[in-house]
Amino acid sequence: MSPLDLSDDVVSLTAALCDIESVSGNEQRIADAIEAALRALPHLTVSRDGNSVIARTELGRAERVVLAGHIDTVPLTDPPNLPVRRDGEDLVGRGTTDMKGGVAVQLRLAAALTEPSRDITFVFYDCEEVESARNGLARVARNSPDLLQADFAVLLEPTNGTVEGGCKGTVRVEVTALGKAAHSARPWNGHNAIHEASAILGRLTAYEAQTVEVDGLEYHEALNAVGIRGGIAGNVIPDECVVVVNYRFAPSTSSAEAEAHLRELFDGYAVRVTDSADGARPGLHLPAARSFVDALAVPVQAKEGWTDVARFAALDIPAVNFGPGDPNLAHHDDERCPMAQLVDAEAALLRWLA
Amino acid sequence: MSPLDLSDDVVSLTAALCDIESVSGNEQRIADAIEAALRALPHLTVSRDGNSVIARTELGRAERVVLAGHIDTVPLTDPPNLPVRRDGEDLVGRGTTDMKGGVAVQLRLAAALTEPSRDITFVFYDCEEVESARNGLARVARNSPDLLQADFAVLLEPTNGTVEGGCKGTVRVEVTALGKAAHSARPWNGHNAIHEASAILGRLTAYEAQTVEVDGLEYHEALNAVGIRGGIAGNVIPDECVVVVNYRFAPSTSSAEAEAHLRELFDGYAVRVTDSADGARPGLHLPAARSFVDALAVPVQAKEGWTDVARFAALDIPAVNFGPGDPNLAHHDDERCPMAQLVDAEAALLRWLA
Repeated sequence: MSPLDLSDDVVSLTAALCDIESVSGNEQRIADAIEAALRALPHLTVSRDGNSVIARTELGRAERVVLAGHIDTVPLTDPPNLPVRRDGEDLVGRGTTDMKGGVAVQLRLAAALTEPSRDITFVFYDCEEVESARNGLARVARNSPDLLQADFAVLLEPTNGTVEGGCKGTVRVEVTALGKAAHSARPWNGHNAIHEASAILGRLTAYEAQTVEVDGLEYHEALNAVGIRGGIAGNVIPDECVVVVNYRFAPSTSSAEAEAHLRELFDGYAVRVTDSADGARPGLHLPAARSFVDALAVPVQAKEGWTDVARFAALDIPAVNFGPGDPNLAHHDDERCPMAQLVDAEAALLRWLA
Repeated sequence: MSPLDLSDDVVSLTAALCDIESVSGNEQRIADAIEAALRALPHLTVSRDGNSVIARTELGRAERVVLAGHIDTVPLTDPPNLPVRRDGEDLVGRGTTDMKGGVAVQLRLAAALTEPSRDITFVFYDCEEVESARNGLARVARNSPDLLQADFAVLLEPTNGTVEGGCKGTVRVEVTALGKAAHSARPWNGHNAIHEASAILGRLTAYEAQTVEVDGLEYHEALNAVGIRGGIAGNVIPDECVVVVNYRFAPSTSSAEAEAHLRELFDGYAVRVTDSADGARPGLHLPAARSFVDALAVPVQAKEGWTDVARFAALDIPAVNFGPGDPNLAHHDDERCPMAQLVDAEAALLRWLA
């Protein structure tokens, strides 16, 4: 494998990063390549934690900002959507949008900004696309929280040229309707748990989700069944029906408050929390965030999906999402990124940090 | 294995039959034992079809009746509920109720009735407890319909000391609600199929099932969800939700009419029939049936569950269920049968056929 050349243009560098296949769990090669490229830069202090790489300027600036991105991707298609190819205005292939374009921008800035206006911590981390317990950013935050300390963080997830502030929280619960089993030819001897679950679905469909303004951005809450299961045989009245419910809530609500809201809403049924994560306030009223938004001069909106900005929020670091690519094409078989967005994202961040 | 001794009392014979484990698909040993015991009786003509055994008197009587029972059981418990044991008034263990007690009665009558008042066809068949395609009675009906020809049939399934006439039909359908997938943080980009299925459950719970009188017996119809499934991931708005519905209908309705009724009821949704079987009219107004009921002098009621009497109905043979044991204990971990019911069932059928 040839080493990464950080003097390449951002499009070529994105292509080179994509062509180092790094499906979650298989990031060693790309982490080695990134670490080697960064260690060649004398103005950076480089650390490694598993397959995560952290590079910092140590210039004693008044402010420090984080630029973070994950280096893993979801699995390739069959046949593989690699190596990347150019198709008109787009770079096409796995990782182009989610998010090796952002990683390429990070690496270009790491090489170019020998004298940035703020100290910068570049974070390249593994296992974002899999279960939270394996997340590289969370691991670094546990092992070396000092390495991440900063006044503001930018996560370079795709935002299609806008800034997306904060993120909603998410809670998943299993709501269970119970019944009594019986033969389906004699249902009067039992009680049908699926029929009982009709009331759960009724509460869901009647629910009116709120739109909540937080730090000047509007978050659209959402409450949905994302799964349902019940029944053990074609001739048995089911004694249990489980509805899996996902609640996405504004970052002004804590996950504990969200759980309490669900327990109240589904009063009378067993409610079991299976997954819970706080959101992140956008913090756009804070000085570090304002200077970022002013320098970029692009539209600012709320982030609807949960992202790792919440891990920065948990460290009391306000964080936003800003990166090249359309988030709707992330994980898509036809994943692609307009090459102009790669160039524009690099230029915008240079304006802020040069 | 010691041979079956048909001079044993009916309780001991039931125990001996139960202790020959014969979970569906594993009936060879018990079929061999039954065949050997019957071939030792000179007044019977014995045939074999796979693991089904048929024994007939050939006395030229004016009427012929069938006594039929299946020789397989559902799987044993863990630890195994065999060998059988006596517990107070009951014989306890797999098969005692469903239906080796009935099979023991058949074998006792086969040995005792050397000069019955009507010609008798004894049918012992395999694979009743599994999918219809493997059913031994259906196979004999296909291979040798003449062997089964008769004026009346009694299926010795457990009826708790009563006569249960005919049986309801059954149709199973999958009713599908469709939606459009989206990320659960942005559900407004999709349409939730589980929420859509709320309307299907609403129609089910609002449905008022009928009670229908057929040939003097009352059949209680029933419409139930017996399964539901939907959702592919905890962060995806589901694009499909399938409700499995089982309709049990009076034998005066054909399965084709029942299917049409369901398509009408679930108008607007895709309805796919996965299983369909006509019921059986009780035919208790017919002479052969009347003589049976008069001789037994036990209560007569409708059979709610579908049973193999419908296979006789399809051959134009009126059929009823009459056998020892409580049908509610069939397939139960604590399967058991009052020993007195075994004795009573044998005596009742002897009154009719001696």
